[in-house]
Amino acid sequence: MAYTPKILAFAGSARKDSVNKKAVAIAAQGARDAGAEVTLIDLADYPMPIYDGDLESADGLPENAKKLKQLFLEHDGLLIASPEYNSSFSPLLKNTIDWVSRKETDDEAPLACYTGKVAVLLAASPGGLGGLRGLVHVRALLENINVIVLPQQRAISGAMNAFGDDGNLSDEKQQQGVLGLGKTLAEFLARYQR
Amino acid sequence: MAYTPKILAFAGSARKDSVNKKAVAIAAQGARDAGAEVTLIDLADYPMPIYDGDLESADGLPENAKKLKQLFLEHDGLLIASPEYNSSFSPLLKNTIDWVSRKETDDEAPLACYTGKVAVLLAASPGGLGGLRGLVHVRALLENINVIVLPQQRAISGAMNAFGDDGNLSDEKQQQGVLGLGKTLAEFLARYQR
Amino acid sequence: MAYTPKILAFAGSARKDSVNKKAVAIAAQGARDAGAEVTLIDLADYPMPIYDGDLESADGLPENAKKLKQLFLEHDGLLIASPEYNSSFSPLLKNTIDWVSRKETDDEAPLACYTGKVAVLLAASPGGLGGLRGLVHVRALLENINVIVLPQQRAISGAMNAFGDDGNLSDEKQQQGVLGLGKTLAEFLARYQR
Amino acid sequence: MAYTPKILAFAGSARKDSVNKKAVAIAAQGARDAGAEVTLIDLADYPMPIYDGDLESADGLPENAKKLKQLFLEHDGLLIASPEYNSSFSPLLKNTIDWVSRKETDDEAPLACYTGKVAVLLAASPGGLGGLRGLVHVRALLENINVIVLPQQRAISGAMNAFGDDGNLSDEKQQQGVLGLGKTLAEFLARYQR
Repeated sequence: MAYTPKILAFAGSARKDSVNKKAVAIAAQGARDAGAEVTLIDLADYPMPIYDGDLESADGLPENAKKLKQLFLEHDGLLIASPEYNSSFSPLLKNTIDWVSRKETDDEAPLACYTGKVAVLLAASPGGLGGLRGLVHVRALLENINVIVLPQQRAISGAMNAFGDDGNLSDEKQQQGVLGLGKTLAEFLARYQR
Repeated sequence: MAYTPKILAFAGSARKDSVNKKAVAIAAQGARDAGAEVTLIDLADYPMPIYDGDLESADGLPENAKKLKQLFLEHDGLLIASPEYNSSFSPLLKNTIDWVSRKETDDEAPLACYTGKVAVLLAASPGGLGGLRGLVHVRALLENINVIVLPQQRAISGAMNAFGDDGNLSDEKQQQGVLGLGKTLAEFLARYQR
Repeated sequence: MAYTPKILAFAGSARKDSVNKKAVAIAAQGARDAGAEVTLIDLADYPMPIYDGDLESADGLPENAKKLKQLFLEHDGLLIASPEYNSSFSPLLKNTIDWVSRKETDDEAPLACYTGKVAVLLAASPGGLGGLRGLVHVRALLENINVIVLPQQRAISGAMNAFGDDGNLSDEKQQQGVLGLGKTLAEFLARYQR
Repeated sequence: MAYTPKILAFAGSARKDSVNKKAVAIAAQGARDAGAEVTLIDLADYPMPIYDGDLESADGLPENAKKLKQLFLEHDGLLIASPEYNSSFSPLLKNTIDWVSRKETDDEAPLACYTGKVAVLLAASPGGLGGLRGLVHVRALLENINVIVLPQQRAISGAMNAFGDDGNLSDEKQQQGVLGLGKTLAEFLARYQR
């Protein structure tokens, strides 16, 4: 039986009308069109306190960290749309990655939920560079925790006016490009895991 | 009248026994010894929610962001000890920098509280590299918001056993090195601002 | 018939007794042991002038650039040992990558000889960090030209005394680690290309 | 007597009509207008072989490396226009920095010709980002060899059509911006060294 790529998709923003949520939804559709099973989540549904070692020592991992960790473990691919705040990733994205990286038991292999995953990155931002500089940091961050990050990426500039009411990008070439990102990940996984 | 350098010092950790809090306290002492006025703060005293644009639109800046912003404006130098989580900075440090960077009024110049500040970085970590990889990210982050980051820095490896009961580094050479970092910043500011 | 991974291996140094040449030879052996066909080359055999656009306009690509380009095209994987000079890659490595990246005809797709290749990096250096900081730049460089760089890497510190007369690493654990890097690349390719 | 800032200016390209040479000449003028003494050099006048440790062991530093080293020692500021090749700096720029960094005698302090220098960076490129990604690497490179790199920088996109016959930027705002970069460096040095 053929392998169906399983992809976890999310944006590094909790904002209701986040352009990064819109962007990742398009990439997720591109991955589905290419045969992948995509779980699109909203980090707003997984609130967690800012990571603090004392908090972890006292209470262990928050329930939402455990849930997210399980989700990471159950998927082979990651589609991440990362908003750029001050030329880097959002505190929300980093906080999520850090909590999820923590071990629940001593038996757990370090970074087990990240190691060997394959990721594709995108960004949307109001500015002219589309969040490109922030992706440099996200890429380095993920590779340091053993994720394979594919070279393909997309940065959507002028994002406040880039999306139509249906959530798609008004520029057809850009829309195809973002759909194509999802497809790239799905096809990579299908080939690698077959 | 001679100019007295004003330095804001803090660690990117809220943990009670944070090795980065200990490290920055030593660097702060080095700056004081060199004639600077140092305000050493604990980010645990300035709790803030994780940055969220919707929250900001609804409620404006948290009181603690306003207080911190005022502190940044009143100081010329920054001494920052940055813990390394997953090879990068902590969500707490990024969250602080992001909230503080937000404008309270439209009249405010962008990044006014960061532009032209001079920073020196250090890190302490349990591992063998002492948080060195994380400093690469902190440096890039600060420079992108117009902070001058001096090339001098220190990474304290094996930090769990590096500090004595008095809070100083047991290795005298290392202790002098961290004191020297504070001195470097104080002297740079004294020379630049005289 | 099973696919045999084809790997091009080289060091970013032309030096006769280069520790990076020794290191990449071990990784190459690890790849061969895992079933790959490895072409181990010495950049000293491919001398080229420093890249200069005027030179290229006048004379086209040097013969050695054309030969290297052909080699890149014929292999699916790259094993690169990168010496660290001033915390970054060597001018020799960059010069090689830049000349090879140039198109010989207008019909040629941009970066055709790099796109989709899979690379694994290592470094050896006399210092305590083993060239780790330089690998950050090599990684970013390769990913920007569409190479998939696997997260696994090795930095051999104290390299001047790390190798025995037989060219192997005296520390058995380190020897196995570098052999393992080659194996990682071979297995990744075998799985991806099968 | 007032201090006159001494600035060494050059581009990381040897090309006759290099847009980066044009760009750095404008920034140099801005620095002169602000009272600095600027030495504008052309790396084409300082040809050197690609750095090779065996070559250095056999013949020592090339004469041009010694001349450049002397120039670095005699100046307090650096104005560098860096062409972007494959998203990073040119082999020519790296080769120059590496040769110049080598010690001629054992008595020489490491990196003496770079330590404490203050630099400002710019880039010009045919593409839409103007060489911005390459500057990330130049910045990291220089800071690792103890240069203070000011946060201000400029990337000139569409550079092939950006300059008039007189060598100035046709866009007056951009021209002022690049002149301003030189001024920023001159004023920083004047203030710091007074």
